[in-house]
Amino acid sequence: MRTEMETESLKTKDRVGSYGFIAEPFHCDFQHELFLGHLCNHLLNAADYHSDERGFGMNYLIPRHRTWVLSRFAIEIYDTPKAYDNICVDTWVDSVMRFFTSRNFAVRNDKDDVCAYGRSIWAMIDTESRHPVDIMAIHDGHISDYIETSKPCPISQPQRVRVGTNTQLLRTVEMQYSDVDVNGHVNSVKYIDHILNLWDLDWYRNNVIKRFDIVYVAESHSGDRLSFWREQTGDEEFGVSITKSSENGTNTIEVCRSSIKFVKR
Amino acid sequence: MRTEMETESLKTKDRVGSYGFIAEPFHCDFQHELFLGHLCNHLLNAADYHSDERGFGMNYLIPRHRTWVLSRFAIEIYDTPKAYDNICVDTWVDSVMRFFTSRNFAVRNDKDDVCAYGRSIWAMIDTESRHPVDIMAIHDGHISDYIETSKPCPISQPQRVRVGTNTQLLRTVEMQYSDVDVNGHVNSVKYIDHILNLWDLDWYRNNVIKRFDIVYVAESHSGDRLSFWREQTGDEEFGVSITKSSENGTNTIEVCRSSIKFVKR
Repeated sequence: MRTEMETESLKTKDRVGSYGFIAEPFHCDFQHELFLGHLCNHLLNAADYHSDERGFGMNYLIPRHRTWVLSRFAIEIYDTPKAYDNICVDTWVDSVMRFFTSRNFAVRNDKDDVCAYGRSIWAMIDTESRHPVDIMAIHDGHISDYIETSKPCPISQPQRVRVGTNTQLLRTVEMQYSDVDVNGHVNSVKYIDHILNLWDLDWYRNNVIKRFDIVYVAESHSGDRLSFWREQTGDEEFGVSITKSSENGTNTIEVCRSSIKFVKR
Repeated sequence: MRTEMETESLKTKDRVGSYGFIAEPFHCDFQHELFLGHLCNHLLNAADYHSDERGFGMNYLIPRHRTWVLSRFAIEIYDTPKAYDNICVDTWVDSVMRFFTSRNFAVRNDKDDVCAYGRSIWAMIDTESRHPVDIMAIHDGHISDYIETSKPCPISQPQRVRVGTNTQLLRTVEMQYSDVDVNGHVNSVKYIDHILNLWDLDWYRNNVIKRFDIVYVAESHSGDRLSFWREQTGDEEFGVSITKSSENGTNTIEVCRSSIKFVKR
């Protein structure tokens, strides 16, 4: 642990990382709006850069058989970035517990207006046992030097998300080569892409995503056949549950669940 | 047309555009290698920026009811970029005909070694009639001021690609919201992603893509069900044809075809 004086000398600007991205034209949908999956990918990249620059990123953890796992994520969008927009993602850790940290995000446009806020909960796991490990054991709790509580993130915590029993099986999709990332399992953002494919272009022509929550429950892998179950919980509100069969085929395992609030354009 | 003196004053450095990208970790596959689709997306972005900066890009064309359409594309890869690698994409126009231009690419790593070359053929179409239009009618043939023939691109032209009759139907995939880009039809790179999903992780563990050619024949849209036909033409060489049914369902239309050469690792 650093001395109290050293800790106090860390300013908000040291604790918050800011990373510029561009809304690339071919990362935008038919309405020239950045796909939510690509926006979320920028947030996850910002988290990766921020933790890496401060000594608790993947580059430090992987050789020590540790990694970060995204457990829950929520984003609220006020103004979806359009093709060619420059955006800046601010990210900071706002609390650390033994097995979880909470990390926030603010996405700013080039007028410095916030166009989205995000919140996320991460666990640290042992890459061999896949079990959670004590975050404070890394670098003598070094991460707690970076806790920033003064920067606002005026959206509610990522929901636990309850999906009811009134769901309808809309689609089964086999996970492929392009779904799997450097971690060897299906990429967090790919679930978001597959979920948002449950609505067609006509829906997106008339509705825009206001808030998206997702809870990651179990990992899935290439070759897994994922079932997408959807229920409508309000005029423009939905719950989605993704399940897979267990390896011996006898049980159904929940992979993740999500709630999506749209608003009419 | 510019005067001869003005034209002569354009140096190679003015004619070639160079754009930096990073191989983002979550754009990399399970072996930490940048997905070919994301690499190709960087090339298409570079083409977009290069043409835009020189006055013949989409921003100039779209209000004039014109757009560029990618007709053929080929890439040869010597060293696939890895997660976090900085890469630089050079791009230049190497010939202009009435209805087609040829644009080349070189991808350099941070040691300035070329890790891939690309070649592409583009048509300009009228966005209403979807018919080809005379490229030289734009800005009095302004694009021809930028032809660069001295920079080497030592790979063969994009092949016409012949796919034989010995193909096997491997998969039918319905195009969704996430497949469609700002142009309102299935994104060029998404076809590449879907084609490369025809091989599993075991294949990629033992083989790496050496050369990829693709010919775009017809557009497809959200809701279209694309059939993926594959034939093996050598130990590590394949042809793939993508087809869809015509709107009245009576004919089969070829959407694109591709040839893929792998080499053993």
